[in-house]
Amino acid sequence: MYTFETKTRVTYQDTDRMGYSYYGNYPTYYEIGRTELFRSLGMPYKFFEDNGIMMPVLSMSVKYIKPAYYDDILTIKTYLKELPSARIKFDYEIFNTDGKLINIGDTVLVFVDGTTKKPIRAPEILINEIEKYFI
Amino acid sequence: MYTFETKTRVTYQDTDRMGYSYYGNYPTYYEIGRTELFRSLGMPYKFFEDNGIMMPVLSMSVKYIKPAYYDDILTIKTYLKELPSARIKFDYEIFNTDGKLINIGDTVLVFVDGTTKKPIRAPEILINEIEKYFI
Amino acid sequence: MYTFETKTRVTYQDTDRMGYSYYGNYPTYYEIGRTELFRSLGMPYKFFEDNGIMMPVLSMSVKYIKPAYYDDILTIKTYLKELPSARIKFDYEIFNTDGKLINIGDTVLVFVDGTTKKPIRAPEILINEIEKYFI
Amino acid sequence: MYTFETKTRVTYQDTDRMGYSYYGNYPTYYEIGRTELFRSLGMPYKFFEDNGIMMPVLSMSVKYIKPAYYDDILTIKTYLKELPSARIKFDYEIFNTDGKLINIGDTVLVFVDGTTKKPIRAPEILINEIEKYFI
Repeated sequence: MYTFETKTRVTYQDTDRMGYSYYGNYPTYYEIGRTELFRSLGMPYKFFEDNGIMMPVLSMSVKYIKPAYYDDILTIKTYLKELPSARIKFDYEIFNTDGKLINIGDTVLVFVDGTTKKPIRAPEILINEIEKYFI
Repeated sequence: MYTFETKTRVTYQDTDRMGYSYYGNYPTYYEIGRTELFRSLGMPYKFFEDNGIMMPVLSMSVKYIKPAYYDDILTIKTYLKELPSARIKFDYEIFNTDGKLINIGDTVLVFVDGTTKKPIRAPEILINEIEKYFI
Repeated sequence: MYTFETKTRVTYQDTDRMGYSYYGNYPTYYEIGRTELFRSLGMPYKFFEDNGIMMPVLSMSVKYIKPAYYDDILTIKTYLKELPSARIKFDYEIFNTDGKLINIGDTVLVFVDGTTKKPIRAPEILINEIEKYFI
Repeated sequence: MYTFETKTRVTYQDTDRMGYSYYGNYPTYYEIGRTELFRSLGMPYKFFEDNGIMMPVLSMSVKYIKPAYYDDILTIKTYLKELPSARIKFDYEIFNTDGKLINIGDTVLVFVDGTTKKPIRAPEILINEIEKYFI
């Protein structure tokens, strides 16, 4: 398993008239989580796209446990629990400033050739890098 | 079962650098779907909030089948397949301009007293209205 | 002068914890306004991009007169007051459900060759179409 | 004059199909700028709202000089060039990773009593804190 933690702050833009961070912001929080996980592996997400590999999202599930409020600093914990194949699955846990778990989710992304738009296998370089954490 | 159909257009703001509508926009499309379903029942979502009832989202799941592109008119089909109790579940199907199914999802919302923030039962007036469609 | 009117509804996503549509949504409302103005001329914005012409925004100014609220239907009135040259300027007025003027703004866009990224003159076909309204 | 600098990263969510950070994201970047300026003065924006003072935006102007791209780290420099009275004006400069100036803007906010929604003077405590930098 490989895991990485990053933080983001709830902006005014994020809030809705309930005073909560809008439920539709969590996909963006997840994006921030996996982006920083990729960067921590030395392979920024941008690196894949610059090499003609796209990673559209196939599916997502989200459980909303507690609301996030304006100006909260959220801790996003992102997990790679399985080696990527044609797909790559990320699990997420989001914690509020008090360290309380407020949100759980996962996303499955697929590797796609940017030119042909056809699914491809995960790049060797990524698998090799992640494998180190899966013994 | 009760179902309602509405349309929305993919804005430039919605697009990402893949040229797709960003995966995090679908929760907003779902929000538009259930808002118009409520309105079609004669009970706009605003009506509940004005009467002290909030409906935060408890969970969501999303399947991304095909991308949506800039300027596409999306058809959002929203389904109420079960009578609401303490919770209300919506199912969604999104179709592109060619009538192709591009996205499937669902959200579960919970009824909450706006003042005490405690869960409450679905309002009678809503259940009565929906029951007509569940014989 | 050429003018076109379109409508958009304030979503829950748009609201902030003041209960207003967030001030940063107005650029998107303006985008909707000019998109529909272009469409009304028989030349959707997409048409320009499909023909290798991009129109990034050079400048914007916004005056916030009154707030917009959740579920309000906004009327966006978009004006072309000058013939486009290397640039094209749009003026906007936004009205709420009561017909009250709530927002005024303008944006200046520049025509750019999508390949070279160099500024170009407005396409003849667009000038010809607009000129009809400027006698 | 008082100035404060903060950083933000361009997310995938921010990008549009031109590959740029969407022009409508800059109000959010400005919000981040002034939020961190307030925090640096020991008076988080939240502090004002918790004390019944709201600060809606009255006007905004934006000049787009160069695009921001996916994954760029933007430096937002926020300036208070005048003492606040009934209004408070912020100037912004945004720089890309190469230190190039890519965007200039300003916003004027008004102090409002959260209950009566009437304009009020800037709180003494804020003026006193800022005055130190204006000799």
